Amino acid sequence: MFERIGIFGKYNGIACWDTIDRLLQHLLNQQKTVLLDAASCADFPHQRYGVAIVERQELVTQIEIAIVVGGDGTFLDVARSVVDYGVPILGINLGRLGFLTDISPRNMTDILDEVMLGHCKFEERNLIRVKISKDEQLEFDQLALNDVVIHKTDSPRMIEFETEVDGRFLNTQRSDGMIISTPTGSTAYALSAGGPILDPRLDVLSLVSINPHTMSTRPYVIPGTSVVRIYPHKNCNGMAHIICDGQLTHHIRLGHVTTITRHKNLIKMIHPNEHDHFKLLRAKLRWGDKL
Amino acid sequence: MFERIGIFGKYNGIACWDTIDRLLQHLLNQQKTVLLDAASCADFPHQRYGVAIVERQELVTQIEIAIVVGGDGTFLDVARSVVDYGVPILGINLGRLGFLTDISPRNMTDILDEVMLGHCKFEERNLIRVKISKDEQLEFDQLALNDVVIHKTDSPRMIEFETEVDGRFLNTQRSDGMIISTPTGSTAYALSAGGPILDPRLDVLSLVSINPHTMSTRPYVIPGTSVVRIYPHKNCNGMAHIICDGQLTHHIRLGHVTTITRHKNLIKMIHPNEHDHFKLLRAKLRWGDKL
Amino acid sequence: MFERIGIFGKYNGIACWDTIDRLLQHLLNQQKTVLLDAASCADFPHQRYGVAIVERQELVTQIEIAIVVGGDGTFLDVARSVVDYGVPILGINLGRLGFLTDISPRNMTDILDEVMLGHCKFEERNLIRVKISKDEQLEFDQLALNDVVIHKTDSPRMIEFETEVDGRFLNTQRSDGMIISTPTGSTAYALSAGGPILDPRLDVLSLVSINPHTMSTRPYVIPGTSVVRIYPHKNCNGMAHIICDGQLTHHIRLGHVTTITRHKNLIKMIHPNEHDHFKLLRAKLRWGDKL
Amino acid sequence: MFERIGIFGKYNGIACWDTIDRLLQHLLNQQKTVLLDAASCADFPHQRYGVAIVERQELVTQIEIAIVVGGDGTFLDVARSVVDYGVPILGINLGRLGFLTDISPRNMTDILDEVMLGHCKFEERNLIRVKISKDEQLEFDQLALNDVVIHKTDSPRMIEFETEVDGRFLNTQRSDGMIISTPTGSTAYALSAGGPILDPRLDVLSLVSINPHTMSTRPYVIPGTSVVRIYPHKNCNGMAHIICDGQLTHHIRLGHVTTITRHKNLIKMIHPNEHDHFKLLRAKLRWGDKL
Repeated sequence: MFERIGIFGKYNGIACWDTIDRLLQHLLNQQKTVLLDAASCADFPHQRYGVAIVERQELVTQIEIAIVVGGDGTFLDVARSVVDYGVPILGINLGRLGFLTDISPRNMTDILDEVMLGHCKFEERNLIRVKISKDEQLEFDQLALNDVVIHKTDSPRMIEFETEVDGRFLNTQRSDGMIISTPTGSTAYALSAGGPILDPRLDVLSLVSINPHTMSTRPYVIPGTSVVRIYPHKNCNGMAHIICDGQLTHHIRLGHVTTITRHKNLIKMIHPNEHDHFKLLRAKLRWGDKL
Repeated sequence: MFERIGIFGKYNGIACWDTIDRLLQHLLNQQKTVLLDAASCADFPHQRYGVAIVERQELVTQIEIAIVVGGDGTFLDVARSVVDYGVPILGINLGRLGFLTDISPRNMTDILDEVMLGHCKFEERNLIRVKISKDEQLEFDQLALNDVVIHKTDSPRMIEFETEVDGRFLNTQRSDGMIISTPTGSTAYALSAGGPILDPRLDVLSLVSINPHTMSTRPYVIPGTSVVRIYPHKNCNGMAHIICDGQLTHHIRLGHVTTITRHKNLIKMIHPNEHDHFKLLRAKLRWGDKL
Repeated sequence: MFERIGIFGKYNGIACWDTIDRLLQHLLNQQKTVLLDAASCADFPHQRYGVAIVERQELVTQIEIAIVVGGDGTFLDVARSVVDYGVPILGINLGRLGFLTDISPRNMTDILDEVMLGHCKFEERNLIRVKISKDEQLEFDQLALNDVVIHKTDSPRMIEFETEVDGRFLNTQRSDGMIISTPTGSTAYALSAGGPILDPRLDVLSLVSINPHTMSTRPYVIPGTSVVRIYPHKNCNGMAHIICDGQLTHHIRLGHVTTITRHKNLIKMIHPNEHDHFKLLRAKLRWGDKL
Repeated sequence: MFERIGIFGKYNGIACWDTIDRLLQHLLNQQKTVLLDAASCADFPHQRYGVAIVERQELVTQIEIAIVVGGDGTFLDVARSVVDYGVPILGINLGRLGFLTDISPRNMTDILDEVMLGHCKFEERNLIRVKISKDEQLEFDQLALNDVVIHKTDSPRMIEFETEVDGRFLNTQRSDGMIISTPTGSTAYALSAGGPILDPRLDVLSLVSINPHTMSTRPYVIPGTSVVRIYPHKNCNGMAHIICDGQLTHHIRLGHVTTITRHKNLIKMIHPNEHDHFKLLRAKLRWGDKL
């Protein structure tokens, strides 16, 4: 089903060389074309296998499937890169089950064989698009699969900002910040901050305030089609920053407008046929199993 | 726009006679046909106005609009009664702003005049249908606009039960109970139990556990189209009960199956044109206003 | 160090016969005098060992140490029985580590040998005394090692009550109830309800409201010497009950006064020398260990 | 009772000139000696009254009482300055009730008259002492009346650190940080982060993690006599900082040891005779009053 395969590792991730090594052997034995991501696998001894190392922006145009070897952080990074090229993505964890990298290195070859036969599940997930502008000038335009966060920076004090949903004023808050989370991100940082878990089938976003000064400020779930705008308030001490997926940041202050919408394309995640999101939740969150 | 009007009061609610009195005078002056709900207004001195008192099941078939005078509890009761007859509903509070009874007695006549001209907003909200059966026998079949709750009864101990969503096992929990809430109910009991606020435009349900023994059991938001089933576990001490809108209850124990689905009909709520759900949230939850 | 030993099992606990069996053999081999608690071990085949079964109120006057075989619930029950007789207590769990029954059956004989030589830690913990009266008549007078809870009973509605601390009005709340917890109970029900963990060295109580209607109602920690009084409010729907350690209950309604004070005697808990409360917390709550 | 009075304002606080003006007239009329704090009142037109402006470190040695005009932030700053000189302190708010500045400008002169006659309450509160060292070199040595916070700085990622209490390992956590709060600080930042309210009579500290990755990491209350040590972990991304009372900061990284103990001196707060801490809590937190 997939002939041209891109492999992405953890940045500076010697820990994943071994897994990539096994992956390569298995795929090359099946006569697949395999390309390695330059951003993460530049130091991998690829000559041994005669496979090419390709720059990320070029790579994503040449592959039919992306295999990520690493943790959820690596997966987020690659997902944002491939989403606009319709490349489906699959995640192999490095020994510790992730919400996104849900395939164990132990049985990855069996699962890959099934995937190559099309015996797998495709699941589509929303991404967020974040634009930051000042004086009508666009300064930042990025995607997020998990969440976008407004957070105080170095200051010891809370920040103040105003939130608008679909053009209507929602509230002004004093807090350490706020998380706007997709269903995918609802089991990540938003969960630590007290947000609800959102079923991945939902087209919604949650707004989760971080240590809000007003105790009645509570997580709020809105339609995925909403347009959220955030305006730092003039009382806002110093600066805040906007963070996409815990990886991309931009400093903002009074005058910056941050606009959050659903991205026009969905990311296609590949799961083994026996994948069950509830089972993953039970395993990761140590919920009760059947008695 | 509306000629045949039903008025519903608070049960045993002498406190609302005065407001009903003013309502009646205003509507009768406009040549409207007004009928009073027998269940709540039996003791109201209706002869003075020459209006009829009609039994609820009869009343709902004869009116074009339901006006509720009372609190949110009264509104819930009436909404469940009228939803299957397509009658829109409007709520006048008794001096204290409610999430459902959002019209103040002070300006109710002005707002009613606008409503009668069709100058108002119609909003549709989901209800939940709850069926309880044992040994394939249906024992209980009711609606809920806010929430359905499984809760321990008299026992000092936690209960144990299993939850299934769309035929798939979600988890087994030990807790005081669980709330299955609509967006409408998300600002009621579910909020006290730590649940998120759900935008009323959403077709979702939240599952909010009450004092769960496992700390990683967190509110979970699922599609409104989901079928939720709850099975008391055999370790479950004594009995639990199922409660709809805090008003209708049924005892369950091992062997009972409680099935929760979205009701096929939506309730039509009437709001003044200037109604703004965010403003209501800010007022009720004392959120920050614009600085 | 201890010659006269009382053994207490889990009520109706055939599951603990085996552990009691091993205990008895070990202790009798050391020429100890062992007595069995009638309330929990009546069905144990004691004739085989020639040990006596003694009624609880008699037993507690004749022993120098109480050994509990069961779970934390069993321990709570026995602790309330022995506290006024100065008998130290030690808990052996049935295969699952408890906060109170922190000795595993696997190494219990080694630990007991150490304890008999006085190689162990003694720790003193507070109990709560709960008195309920109406019209100056005392109706209930019991102890609690974990917590005393006021909770709604069968009613689907919240209860309302007033809390007074040291003769001063604290607040009126509408909620499902409130937990008054000792440090010992702070890792039990109070934790599920959002209360803080209290170090066992502290002489304090926490007041933890259960699903309070007002979101700013938060856990409150007061001196252990405080006198707490609870008055059901006249708006209180139906009845509430008072529950000690999840085991002893009493129904209350308007007119009942519940008075909570620290009990005059402390319970002496015995731990192995290597006992470390922080380690217990890390194990039970799955906190992070040293990296 | 007090003859030599120091007045402290809000930094750059023209908003408090008017209140200080009224204060001065009132106190000078009573032949009191009044000195103004140079750090906060340098720009106040003091010549008009013939009162001296004195540097803070000098001022605190010359006064018998400190009057703070401002918000709780101003009070914290002054309290740390005067605590080692045994000077009692009293706070006048600028129109909005504070937990520390609990006297309204409206009736401040009446209350001051009472205080001067000794008709008032003295309350003693703990402060925290924070020392930060690296390679046995002391880098930072400050006090905090509310709280000391370890928090991530500019990084988008969580930090990791180890906590030790009284020389024993408590846990390793991944989080945005942790608050160590006095009873005084328990209604400030610690409350936003989910911590309990601690009665001001208690000699305890609470450890409140900020958005911990592990959901079972919960607020922990320890004796006030405890020694808490925090060690950044080597996985700790970039740097963290330590913040006293939201005002004094110091950057730390791997190798820094932060030691938190109770300060040897207590701060003496002055309250009007009718002061009631529960009433203050009810007012600030909008708890239920008597029905």
